[in-house]
Amino acid sequence: MFLARITGSLISSHKVQTLVGQKLLIVEPLRVDEADGGALKGTGRTFVVVDPVGAGEGEVVLCVQGSSARYTPETKTLPIDAAIIGIVDQVQVKANTVFKKSDE
Amino acid sequence: MFLARITGSLISSHKVQTLVGQKLLIVEPLRVDEADGGALKGTGRTFVVVDPVGAGEGEVVLCVQGSSARYTPETKTLPIDAAIIGIVDQVQVKANTVFKKSDE
Amino acid sequence: MFLARITGSLISSHKVQTLVGQKLLIVEPLRVDEADGGALKGTGRTFVVVDPVGAGEGEVVLCVQGSSARYTPETKTLPIDAAIIGIVDQVQVKANTVFKKSDE
Amino acid sequence: MFLARITGSLISSHKVQTLVGQKLLIVEPLRVDEADGGALKGTGRTFVVVDPVGAGEGEVVLCVQGSSARYTPETKTLPIDAAIIGIVDQVQVKANTVFKKSDE
Amino acid sequence: MFLARITGSLISSHKVQTLVGQKLLIVEPLRVDEADGGALKGTGRTFVVVDPVGAGEGEVVLCVQGSSARYTPETKTLPIDAAIIGIVDQVQVKANTVFKKSDE
Repeated sequence: MFLARITGSLISSHKVQTLVGQKLLIVEPLRVDEADGGALKGTGRTFVVVDPVGAGEGEVVLCVQGSSARYTPETKTLPIDAAIIGIVDQVQVKANTVFKKSDE
Repeated sequence: MFLARITGSLISSHKVQTLVGQKLLIVEPLRVDEADGGALKGTGRTFVVVDPVGAGEGEVVLCVQGSSARYTPETKTLPIDAAIIGIVDQVQVKANTVFKKSDE
Repeated sequence: MFLARITGSLISSHKVQTLVGQKLLIVEPLRVDEADGGALKGTGRTFVVVDPVGAGEGEVVLCVQGSSARYTPETKTLPIDAAIIGIVDQVQVKANTVFKKSDE
Repeated sequence: MFLARITGSLISSHKVQTLVGQKLLIVEPLRVDEADGGALKGTGRTFVVVDPVGAGEGEVVLCVQGSSARYTPETKTLPIDAAIIGIVDQVQVKANTVFKKSDE
Repeated sequence: MFLARITGSLISSHKVQTLVGQKLLIVEPLRVDEADGGALKGTGRTFVVVDPVGAGEGEVVLCVQGSSARYTPETKTLPIDAAIIGIVDQVQVKANTVFKKSDE
């Protein structure tokens, strides 16, 4: 899985029927920057994910890729390859708290 | 999933039997360029996708990769690893509309 | 899926039993070079693919990756992750014919 | 599979129901640096993995990606794409011991 | 699939139960270097693979990635994402023999 920040959303009125009603969000994967004490940095990459957990723009989330994105009750059998599986509250790297949702 | 622009198409007269009749399109994945206010930029990569939604050249589409490309009614059990699952109308990044189909 | 040119082949006399009789080809994935009018360029990457369609060295082919490589009649249940699914006759990019098999 | 060092962990109180109780760890994939006698070097990449084997921070572990992450008794049918499948005791590269857990 | 050279091995005494008895090898993927007449060059990347064919250190092998690594009799249902499926005897690129096992 990977950490990502939700940066946006998209509208697609003409799409595969089973995707109607699914929220489609744009996320930027994050990486731990060891050179900067473990701070979370953007990678510049762009993914579109389905959101079965109700996250909001700007939040840091945990995303799953591949066939496993179909293994939540809300996404079963959907033609999707990426989904949010959790909203991240806190990230620890080598005993440092490098991200805390309540600080944002 | 990833955003992409349809840049072309290909003809293959000699192919796996189950692919006969499938439209094969060439797409270039796009990324959100945060340095440029979230504008959609080409990545220079090239994918071939099956199109079960009827998109046209030049359009921005949402694509799925991997086994999930087989999870639409039109692509079930096909030997494909990428498909268009939606035509994109609008993309929002940090409250800015960075893409609008009607503007193109 | 991706476009690739067949550049070679390999011999493996000691292999998994189910692969006996399968042709193993070496391919180089291609990309559309928009800076060069959409010409197909090599990427320098190397894949080994199974060939259920009978392609020949030097040809441009369409390849599938991942679990879907097992979704042709000839490759069903094989321990393979890449297969040729079509021989490419022609590629169009933005109204230009950037590849034509008969020209080669 | 890939070698990785566990660098941290994360807390997600709002997540997909089936993930409740699963330990989520942050790992950095390692590579063998042939230029340095086969020493294990960090790659700078960041993955989040589920840990069914009980590893601890700082340990070098073996990780599996993709659908196979669901093939342990503890992770069956979970919406995850990466899991630890072993704690690494020793790594040999070209007759040199490049990593030994007891030396750390 | 990809070509790789076996560069080492690893020991993991504490691992998922189904992996007990499986040989875990370290491999470096190879690529065909067209600039050098098709010679096989290391890519600097590192993978860990299961070996159901009995290959030895230093040998060039054919590896499969993803769910298909579970499609050999020896690896069925294992939580692995990469396996050796053949020992390579010879590689031809554009009519040149760029690798021959018996020459090594």
